[in-house]
Amino acid sequence: MSRLYIGLVHYPVLNKHNETVQTSVTNLDIHDIARTAATYGVKNYFIITPDESQQEYVSKIIGFWQNESGKLYNPDRSAALSLITITESITSSINKITMQEEMRPIVITTTARHKLDQIGIDKLTDLYRANQPLLLLFGTGHGLTENVYSEADYILKPISGITGYNHLSVRSAVAIILDRITSAVYKGRN
Amino acid sequence: MSRLYIGLVHYPVLNKHNETVQTSVTNLDIHDIARTAATYGVKNYFIITPDESQQEYVSKIIGFWQNESGKLYNPDRSAALSLITITESITSSINKITMQEEMRPIVITTTARHKLDQIGIDKLTDLYRANQPLLLLFGTGHGLTENVYSEADYILKPISGITGYNHLSVRSAVAIILDRITSAVYKGRN
Repeated sequence: MSRLYIGLVHYPVLNKHNETVQTSVTNLDIHDIARTAATYGVKNYFIITPDESQQEYVSKIIGFWQNESGKLYNPDRSAALSLITITESITSSINKITMQEEMRPIVITTTARHKLDQIGIDKLTDLYRANQPLLLLFGTGHGLTENVYSEADYILKPISGITGYNHLSVRSAVAIILDRITSAVYKGRN
Repeated sequence: MSRLYIGLVHYPVLNKHNETVQTSVTNLDIHDIARTAATYGVKNYFIITPDESQQEYVSKIIGFWQNESGKLYNPDRSAALSLITITESITSSINKITMQEEMRPIVITTTARHKLDQIGIDKLTDLYRANQPLLLLFGTGHGLTENVYSEADYILKPISGITGYNHLSVRSAVAIILDRITSAVYKGRN
């Protein structure tokens, strides 16, 4: 059983003008990323927002798919959404994992930018293989704030495709990163 | 320069009751998949629908991002959407590629299901490495119809994660498949 957790951060993140803002949770981020999480054995998918009305919105969607009619209509969707935990902050997500694993997780941030001292997918794979509790953080909007990076244990290098274009959606980035880590460990890809 | 094309099929696809239907184009399928296509050097991303009002809808969105204000607001988005070609059918997509490449593409369908005689990612990677013109088809709704599979050259095996859960969104599936093919060729992953 892996101890891999992911978190989608809606605050604190940057806007286009490099200001710290809170973004809205989107329906598709809930569904797409939950389905990816279920595929790759993620233990919990944290949707991180301090906004109570946003938390309620997510609860309602999850509730719809967890009740009897939702389960009957699409049991697979229901299973994926059961991985979601709503938290008010990154710290509170870390605390929940610490309680569950009886150990603080290693926090790895992701970014589409080049920064100093970034780790590669190989290092992340090593941590995953060693069965360390891991929390992978993904930003919405124009990315996580500097503060989040400086408080994390590691920053993962951006995903490089083959063209130099590096503006993947967060939904695609989550899928690719989870596929790369688990493929390396379970299928001997590198 | 790769000769890799992808197509997102809105007709003919199946609904929940295994009936052949036409689905609506969604805004996020346009954007997310175009951004993934730009990242992985896809030559054209075909949005396939016979419905003229849907074709107009897609044209309008592309137009918005191609005009001066869209380009200024987000040049990267504009670049990604420039890869989109709207076509009325799979056949018309194949014809366009045949004109452009002076050679019929090899058509590879994708599915979340297990079927007879499916090829693995290694075979697909070989075709890509050999610089064959390739058209990878992805279904919306509950997947492509049997007819589409029987007319294609190959059917790709479903993406297996590590849990047996295989209900990824089409957006995530496109990202993972393109990452796997190009990683194998450009980075020696297998």
